Amino acid sequence: MKFVSAVQKGDSFIGVVKNDAVVNVSALAASVGKEIPGTLLEAIEQGEEFTSTVHDLVNQVKAADFTYTLEEVQLLAPIPRPSKNVFCIGKNYRDHAIEMGSEADIPKNIMVFSKAPTAVIGHGEGILSHSKVTDQLDYEGELAVVIGKTGTGITKEEAMDYVFGYTIINDITARDLQQKHKQFLLGKSLDGTCPMGPWIVHHSEIPNPESLMIETKVNGEVRQKGNTSDFIFDIRTTIAELSKGMTLEAGDIIATGTPAGVGKGMKPPVFLKAGDTIEITIEGIGTLRNEIVE
Amino acid sequence: MKFVSAVQKGDSFIGVVKNDAVVNVSALAASVGKEIPGTLLEAIEQGEEFTSTVHDLVNQVKAADFTYTLEEVQLLAPIPRPSKNVFCIGKNYRDHAIEMGSEADIPKNIMVFSKAPTAVIGHGEGILSHSKVTDQLDYEGELAVVIGKTGTGITKEEAMDYVFGYTIINDITARDLQQKHKQFLLGKSLDGTCPMGPWIVHHSEIPNPESLMIETKVNGEVRQKGNTSDFIFDIRTTIAELSKGMTLEAGDIIATGTPAGVGKGMKPPVFLKAGDTIEITIEGIGTLRNEIVE
Repeated sequence: MKFVSAVQKGDSFIGVVKNDAVVNVSALAASVGKEIPGTLLEAIEQGEEFTSTVHDLVNQVKAADFTYTLEEVQLLAPIPRPSKNVFCIGKNYRDHAIEMGSEADIPKNIMVFSKAPTAVIGHGEGILSHSKVTDQLDYEGELAVVIGKTGTGITKEEAMDYVFGYTIINDITARDLQQKHKQFLLGKSLDGTCPMGPWIVHHSEIPNPESLMIETKVNGEVRQKGNTSDFIFDIRTTIAELSKGMTLEAGDIIATGTPAGVGKGMKPPVFLKAGDTIEITIEGIGTLRNEIVE
Repeated sequence: MKFVSAVQKGDSFIGVVKNDAVVNVSALAASVGKEIPGTLLEAIEQGEEFTSTVHDLVNQVKAADFTYTLEEVQLLAPIPRPSKNVFCIGKNYRDHAIEMGSEADIPKNIMVFSKAPTAVIGHGEGILSHSKVTDQLDYEGELAVVIGKTGTGITKEEAMDYVFGYTIINDITARDLQQKHKQFLLGKSLDGTCPMGPWIVHHSEIPNPESLMIETKVNGEVRQKGNTSDFIFDIRTTIAELSKGMTLEAGDIIATGTPAGVGKGMKPPVFLKAGDTIEITIEGIGTLRNEIVE
């Protein structure tokens, strides 16, 4: 199932996308006197119970009454307000590490930084150009893992049991700020620089998240074309490394790094400007599309 | 006023410390039919209205009925669960930058990293030694600024209007992880490595936060002795720099960096071990004390 957070006529709800239509699960549940959480984040915290409740609900005949076309609703980020910063893995594809510097930049140990939750926006929302603050705005198409269960000291063997599902993140980066401030947080946390979505695909539909084609286009031109099979640190390793001594919580989001082809790596570098459209497509998930706005 | 989050007989409440006693403001407000927010974070989001309500309440004759000694209550971190990672300024005192490397480590631009909110604990709580994950656990005594009003693009001139108050943070760091993972997040976010408290002092009681003596003792021995007048990036600059393009929100916490004298800077380095007690005292605020536990 593909889970969305969405708004229709001012009413925000949890939904499921089925055959290119959106089922308003919140309204459907209410119509049969079933209580479900108010937000997708709370629903994920509730665990697999939520998934099976939703599965039963959307298979009801009545579901059609609560179904809209994708055009009729506004998609929000699936988790519009994460309860902490979004974790991001740096330089997790060899070719991208090299384009950012040299072979010496390929990390021997996992590199983790974060994006402030205030940066999160949804599919279709405008990304502010922040032209007064940066003139090196860049894209990074990434597979994001959504944690489904809280744990510490999670082993590689059990790590995949802690995954709720997958979504797409555009880890928009102000390269000048990233470099200037050494630690990445400021260059990665400008408002609107964490487009996420369009939905979270449940893990059961992506049995092998490490063989997914990932592609980023800017104004229709392919810039990044990679495959998650090229991760330096795979998802199991990432979850195990992060949770060594730091509790991972249900609803936590981990962006897994970007393949080669960012604007900074072009010769000469090409950065984003108002009017540019970025589309990130990941096999089995869909396409996250956002435009840079002044 | 000194604001606390506390628990007494299983009941958690917002309180105010007055003459070494704790007034249960939540209970006091309820007794006169006044509604106040359930958590100090929500109260801070409410703005100055909350401060004046509390001021009126604690000056009531009835306040004595809701007053306990400090020994009778358990203090939590004033904001036990921040709504995002705690912002931290790196190397914000020259002497500390030098002890971590050399003159070349004195930052020319502000360096910002973060600690996961899962790391937050209160005054008196045990700090896990994490001996399976690190053998270089170190302390960093820091003044922390609590933001009182949401804003973006805050100028230096108006920055101090955005401060709710001040508290103490021990930015406990696993030096080996900090170094190994390059970006600081993992080495700074082990569970329990963000002791905070014992309370938030309202800004009105600290008119000049840049002339405060700050001292850290380990097992009674003075290790750090500095003054916030030595900040490289003062509070105004910090707020202005962070909010350039990134919205700062009421309840956000900024740890302002640590003076010289950390364990890693000793010759030879001395790290923390189970049984060690760390006390950080900041003039005008008080003392944050925690023990390392196995």
